[in-house]
Amino acid sequence: MTDLSVYEKQHFGKPLGFGRQPALLIIDFQVGFAKPDVLGGFNINESIARTTELLRSARATGVPVCHVRFASEAHGEDIGTFAMKVPALKDLAPDSTDAQFVDSVAPIEGEYVSIKRHSSAFFGTNLASWLISRGVDTLFITGCTTSGCVRASTVDASAYSLRPMVVTDCVGDRAQGPHEASLFDMGQKYADLVTMRDAVAHFESRQSTRRAA
Amino acid sequence: MTDLSVYEKQHFGKPLGFGRQPALLIIDFQVGFAKPDVLGGFNINESIARTTELLRSARATGVPVCHVRFASEAHGEDIGTFAMKVPALKDLAPDSTDAQFVDSVAPIEGEYVSIKRHSSAFFGTNLASWLISRGVDTLFITGCTTSGCVRASTVDASAYSLRPMVVTDCVGDRAQGPHEASLFDMGQKYADLVTMRDAVAHFESRQSTRRAA
Amino acid sequence: MTDLSVYEKQHFGKPLGFGRQPALLIIDFQVGFAKPDVLGGFNINESIARTTELLRSARATGVPVCHVRFASEAHGEDIGTFAMKVPALKDLAPDSTDAQFVDSVAPIEGEYVSIKRHSSAFFGTNLASWLISRGVDTLFITGCTTSGCVRASTVDASAYSLRPMVVTDCVGDRAQGPHEASLFDMGQKYADLVTMRDAVAHFESRQSTRRAA
Amino acid sequence: MTDLSVYEKQHFGKPLGFGRQPALLIIDFQVGFAKPDVLGGFNINESIARTTELLRSARATGVPVCHVRFASEAHGEDIGTFAMKVPALKDLAPDSTDAQFVDSVAPIEGEYVSIKRHSSAFFGTNLASWLISRGVDTLFITGCTTSGCVRASTVDASAYSLRPMVVTDCVGDRAQGPHEASLFDMGQKYADLVTMRDAVAHFESRQSTRRAA
Repeated sequence: MTDLSVYEKQHFGKPLGFGRQPALLIIDFQVGFAKPDVLGGFNINESIARTTELLRSARATGVPVCHVRFASEAHGEDIGTFAMKVPALKDLAPDSTDAQFVDSVAPIEGEYVSIKRHSSAFFGTNLASWLISRGVDTLFITGCTTSGCVRASTVDASAYSLRPMVVTDCVGDRAQGPHEASLFDMGQKYADLVTMRDAVAHFESRQSTRRAA
Repeated sequence: MTDLSVYEKQHFGKPLGFGRQPALLIIDFQVGFAKPDVLGGFNINESIARTTELLRSARATGVPVCHVRFASEAHGEDIGTFAMKVPALKDLAPDSTDAQFVDSVAPIEGEYVSIKRHSSAFFGTNLASWLISRGVDTLFITGCTTSGCVRASTVDASAYSLRPMVVTDCVGDRAQGPHEASLFDMGQKYADLVTMRDAVAHFESRQSTRRAA
Repeated sequence: MTDLSVYEKQHFGKPLGFGRQPALLIIDFQVGFAKPDVLGGFNINESIARTTELLRSARATGVPVCHVRFASEAHGEDIGTFAMKVPALKDLAPDSTDAQFVDSVAPIEGEYVSIKRHSSAFFGTNLASWLISRGVDTLFITGCTTSGCVRASTVDASAYSLRPMVVTDCVGDRAQGPHEASLFDMGQKYADLVTMRDAVAHFESRQSTRRAA
Repeated sequence: MTDLSVYEKQHFGKPLGFGRQPALLIIDFQVGFAKPDVLGGFNINESIARTTELLRSARATGVPVCHVRFASEAHGEDIGTFAMKVPALKDLAPDSTDAQFVDSVAPIEGEYVSIKRHSSAFFGTNLASWLISRGVDTLFITGCTTSGCVRASTVDASAYSLRPMVVTDCVGDRAQGPHEASLFDMGQKYADLVTMRDAVAHFESRQSTRRAA
C-alpha cells in the first residue's frame, strides 16, 4: 500500500532489539480456536504447530513460559459487553472442551497459567507481576488471534515498557486481512516482528553464553 | 475481502446498542497530529472538524466530556520502549507546541483532562475512575489515530465493560489502510460503529426525553 | 488517642452516604482463615457468622454479590515477594481444603467469583469491570482480614470512585490492634463504617421503594 | 500488644532482603503536608529532613529516583469519592502552593515525576512501567502519610512483586497511632522495615562493588 510510506517518513518502526531476560507468552491456543467452525480459521493451526517447536526450545533453554486462555462463567455474565459483541465467547466455560489448552502447547508444572476474561493477557491477570518477579524485559508473543488478543497483549506489553517480540509465524488469525494488517501496525508502533527461527536462535545463543561463562 | 465471511459465520459483530449514560472521549487531537509532516496525515484534519461539531452537541446536551493527550518527559525517558519504536514521540514534551490540544476541540472547565504516556486513554490514567464516578456505561470515542490510540482505548473500554461507540467520521489516521482495517476489527469484536450524526441524534433525543419528564 | 484530634481539625472522615446501586463484596472467607492455627484468629469466625446473615439479605433483595478468594499455584511461585513475606500463603493451592470458601458464605450460580493472588480484590482480577457492567456505585465490603485484604480492597474501591461501605461487624482480623487501627483509617480516608444492621436496612428499603414504584 | 503474637505463630514478617536493582520513591512531600494546620502534623517534617539526606545519597550513587505528588482539578471533580471523604484534597489544584513539592526533596531533570489523584503511587500513573524499564526489583519507599499514600503504595509495590523497603524514619504521618500501626502491618505482610542509614549503606555498598568490578 503506497499510503504506508508516511510511516517511514515519520520514522516509525525502529527496532527494539533483544534485552537481557526473555519470556515466552502463549495466548489462547485453545481447542475452540483450533476448530475453523468454532472460533478458528485461516492459519491458526499452522501457528500452533510452529509454537509447539518454539515452546520446546524455550523449555530446553530455560526461558520462562506463560500461558493464558480465555474463559467466561455463567454464560458470559462476567465478561460484560464483550459477550454482547461476540456471543460465541459465552460458550467458553472454564471446564468446557473448547476452552482447554491445545495438548501440544499445554502448560507443565512451574509455568505461569492464568484464565483471562478479556482480550489482553495483562487485563485482569497478574501477568505483569509475574514478569517483574522474574526480571523479564523481553516478551516473545505467540497465540491467537493476531488482530484480537495477540494485538491487545502486545499493546499492553509495550505500555508496561517491555520489549514485545511478535513471532510472526507463531501467531494466527481466522482471516488473512486482519492478520496482516495487525502485523503491520504492531511492527510500526509497538513490537519487533521476528520469526520462530529468530526466537530459537536467540534462546540458544543465550544458553551458550551462559554455559561459556 | 471474501476471507472475512468467517466473522459472520462465527456470529461476530453483534450490536451493543446505547446504554443509559453516555460520555464523549476525545483522544490525541493535538497540534502535532494535525500536521501531515509531523505525526498526522490522511483524514485526521477532517475528523477534527467533525469532532468539533460533535463536541458542541455534547456540551449543549450535558454529555460529560473527557480529553486525553499524549506527552512524554525528558526526551522520552518516561515512555520506555514506545520511544525506541517511535522516536518522534520523544519530541512531544508536555509544554511543546505540538503536544497542545487543537484549539477547536480544547477542553473547558469541568471536563476531564489527562496526559497519557502510552496508547490507551485508560493506561496510567484515572479515566476509568472518572467514568465510574459519573455512572457512564456508553463511551463515544473520537480522536486519532484509529489504528493506534483510538483502537487501544476501545479495547480497554470493552475490557472495562463499557459500551464503546467508535464514531467513524470523528476518528482519523495517517494512512487509509490501517484506518479501515482497525474500524473493521473494532466493529467485529469490541464496539459499535456509529456516525457523528448518529451520536448527535442520540445526545439530542436523551435531552428531549429528560425535558419531557 | 488524643493525637487523633488532628483528623477532625483537618476535616477528615466526612460521610459518603449510599448511592444508587449497591453490591456486596465478600473477601477471603476461606477455610484456612477460619482456623486460628492456620491464618485465622480473633474475631474472624464471628464476622463470618454475621456475613452469612448479610449475604442472605443481599440475595433476598436482589443486591449483586461478588466473592473473591486468595490462592497461589506452584508453591507460591506466582505471587512473587508476597510469598517471601508470608510463607503460609504458599500452601493455599487453588484445590487445597484451606483455600475453599467457607460453606455458609459460598457463592451460588450467577454471583461473581474470582481467585486473586494479592491483597486487593481488584488487583489482577476483572472485578472493576464486573461492577461497571452492573452500574454499581456503592460497595459493601466484608471479609478478612481487616488490616490486609479488606483494607487493600477498600483503598482500591475508593480509587475507582466507588462508595466503599466497610461493614464493621462483618470484617475480621487475626488480632484486635490491627483490626481497630484499620477501621479507624478507612473511616477517616476512604469509606463509611456501617453495621450489618445498617446494610440490611438499606437493602430492604431499596426493595420496598422499587416494589412501591 | 500481646495479641500480636499470632503473627509470629503464623510465620508472618519474614525478611525479603535487597534485590539487584533499587529505586527510591518519594511520595507526597508537598508544601501542604509540611504544614500542621493544612494536611501535616506529628513527624512529617522530621521525615522530610531525613529523606533529603537519603535523596542526596541516591543521586550520588546512581539510584533512580521517582517523585509523585497528589493533585486534583476542578475542585476535586476528578477524584470522585475521595474528595467527599476528605474535602481538604479539593484545594490541592496542580498549580496551588500547597500542592508543590517541598524544595529540599524536589525532582531534578531525569527523575520520574508524576501527579497522582488517589492514594497509591501506582494507581492511575505509569510508575510500574517506568520501574520495569529500568529493571528495578527493590523499591525504597519514603514520604507521607504512613497510613495513607505510603501504605497504599507499599501494598501495590508488593502486588507488582517488587521488594518494598519502607524507610521507617523517612515516612511520616499526621498522628502517631496510625503511623505505628501501619509500620507494623507493612512489616508483617508486605515490606521490610529499614532505616535511612540502612538504605544509605546499601546504596554505597552497591556503588563500591561496581567500582571495584
